[in-house]
Amino acid sequence: MERRDRVVALAGGVGGARLAHGLLLALGDESPYERIDPADAQPSPIYPLTVVCNTADDFDLYGLRISPDCDTVLYTLAGLANPETGWGIAGDIANALDMLRRYGAEIWFWLGDRDLATHILRTERLRAGWPLSAVMRAFGQALGVQANLLPMCEEPVATLLRTSEGELAFQEYFVRRRQNDTVLGVRFEGIEQARVSGAVRDAITQAQAIIFCPSNPFVSIGPVLAVPGMRDLIVAASAPKVAVSPIVGGAAIKGPAAAMLASMGYEVSAYGVATLYAGLIQGFVIDRADAADAARIEALGIRVFVTDAVMRDQVGRERLAREVLRFAEEL
Amino acid sequence: MERRDRVVALAGGVGGARLAHGLLLALGDESPYERIDPADAQPSPIYPLTVVCNTADDFDLYGLRISPDCDTVLYTLAGLANPETGWGIAGDIANALDMLRRYGAEIWFWLGDRDLATHILRTERLRAGWPLSAVMRAFGQALGVQANLLPMCEEPVATLLRTSEGELAFQEYFVRRRQNDTVLGVRFEGIEQARVSGAVRDAITQAQAIIFCPSNPFVSIGPVLAVPGMRDLIVAASAPKVAVSPIVGGAAIKGPAAAMLASMGYEVSAYGVATLYAGLIQGFVIDRADAADAARIEALGIRVFVTDAVMRDQVGRERLAREVLRFAEEL
Repeated sequence: MERRDRVVALAGGVGGARLAHGLLLALGDESPYERIDPADAQPSPIYPLTVVCNTADDFDLYGLRISPDCDTVLYTLAGLANPETGWGIAGDIANALDMLRRYGAEIWFWLGDRDLATHILRTERLRAGWPLSAVMRAFGQALGVQANLLPMCEEPVATLLRTSEGELAFQEYFVRRRQNDTVLGVRFEGIEQARVSGAVRDAITQAQAIIFCPSNPFVSIGPVLAVPGMRDLIVAASAPKVAVSPIVGGAAIKGPAAAMLASMGYEVSAYGVATLYAGLIQGFVIDRADAADAARIEALGIRVFVTDAVMRDQVGRERLAREVLRFAEEL
Repeated sequence: MERRDRVVALAGGVGGARLAHGLLLALGDESPYERIDPADAQPSPIYPLTVVCNTADDFDLYGLRISPDCDTVLYTLAGLANPETGWGIAGDIANALDMLRRYGAEIWFWLGDRDLATHILRTERLRAGWPLSAVMRAFGQALGVQANLLPMCEEPVATLLRTSEGELAFQEYFVRRRQNDTVLGVRFEGIEQARVSGAVRDAITQAQAIIFCPSNPFVSIGPVLAVPGMRDLIVAASAPKVAVSPIVGGAAIKGPAAAMLASMGYEVSAYGVATLYAGLIQGFVIDRADAADAARIEALGIRVFVTDAVMRDQVGRERLAREVLRFAEEL
């Protein structure tokens, strides 16, 4: 791209947030476009990078609405994320949670005190009728995030996993039961009511590159693509679409992607992920460890770029992001 | 009293909580009565001490329901209260509030992170349909409080102050504007809908002593007495009723009681407070500094006990409570 702007990243949690951060660094400090948002008549900046974030793992805890993936992207792009875990706020402690425990509340999802402020304010604003996108935009602006952080939709959607132990809510499976159940199927409750917002539509339509971040294809990218109209919109967009493999050397960099590929009948490999995205993407970025998959992936009609696909630090994020953007430009 | 049990204390915030704590210490570790609560069919202990707590300064902040006086009593009786301020939890810090500030939220009411857990859980439970008394009972049980902590009513009531600057909500006047406005009148919004609960009725009816704690007579004890039926119930109760003066040497030990007495046309003295309670109490405990008021107070038909009415520490609380109970016993 001549001007490295108007990039859309589809992201889930930690892996997605890290590549999104790399893209932000790679795109540099392009001035935002100032515009009047017809929805609220407030001038709001439009940044070169738009992150469309999974919200199907959002849930309620202690009466608070929690959006784990949006918040991970928010904190990561704001430079606040805990570098060890990838989620939560660096240095955060959990005194409120400790007190909740004293009150006998069931404690299974770690919530730092600073992080709690995010959930309190989101819950208050949602109850007051703000759309989630407005809540996240206000958070991003307050924390100085130089990107458009858009939830995949405004409507509540819930990932439900069919397992041998019955159907489980996502955080139940992911956090409480530590991903120990075998996932046999995934469905997104409420997805029929979800709509692609004007802001998401504009970003995708005008994008010069659409990046599928290295997030779980079933429970992070899957819900984004399942929003009615989203898949067609992405297919129809003129921008090149490039995915980055979340599987490296037959294992997920983080999370249960590998186990889910296996239990749902896919090959546990970069190739296995590519089969899920066939027809959607033109380019796939895989790790050197998976170079042997390249020919089979290209046979799916997907060009392959082989590099070091593991982001070990901030430099690695920006390096991978630059490679991804250059690869997209060539497509 | 032969058995020092079945004591009811009417309390507001810090001063009330401190005397209530003294009463708890003075009553010692009487075994609670076990009983089946007909409302929820849960066995719940009934302790010798019942604190009926002002809830008219309860309010909503960041979407959370805050009950400042109930919580001050809760924390004080649990031994958790900040000894410096009298309110909040000892050692609590405010990381969540700091983050709320970063998000641009208006910060005018200090909320520690541990304290926040109380508000989060209360809000969740109230929204789920729990009565406030059930919320506070669960908190008290979880924190090992050996007293029945009862809100004055279940219904939301709001203290509104008529001032030269117009009508102000209580916390607006008390915290945000630092009690700088001249209070010309007080009303309790919603009080017409409030009801004396069965638990409060039982406690008052069966009490062997009813103690008006040294709390603000207008905005702490006032709302409790304003619950429809409460005043008559107290008057009709067979127990001796004793108040402890919140005014010592012409000044309030804490808070705006002295300023309110003056601006609402009362004498700023222990006598001034006694005139407000005339017809309700048989005994009034005043400080040695106010011994000269004794004759005028007795002329109101109220017996007077003169002592050191300032609670400087835990020993002072228990000492004053023992004197108050002994005085009540003699009436």
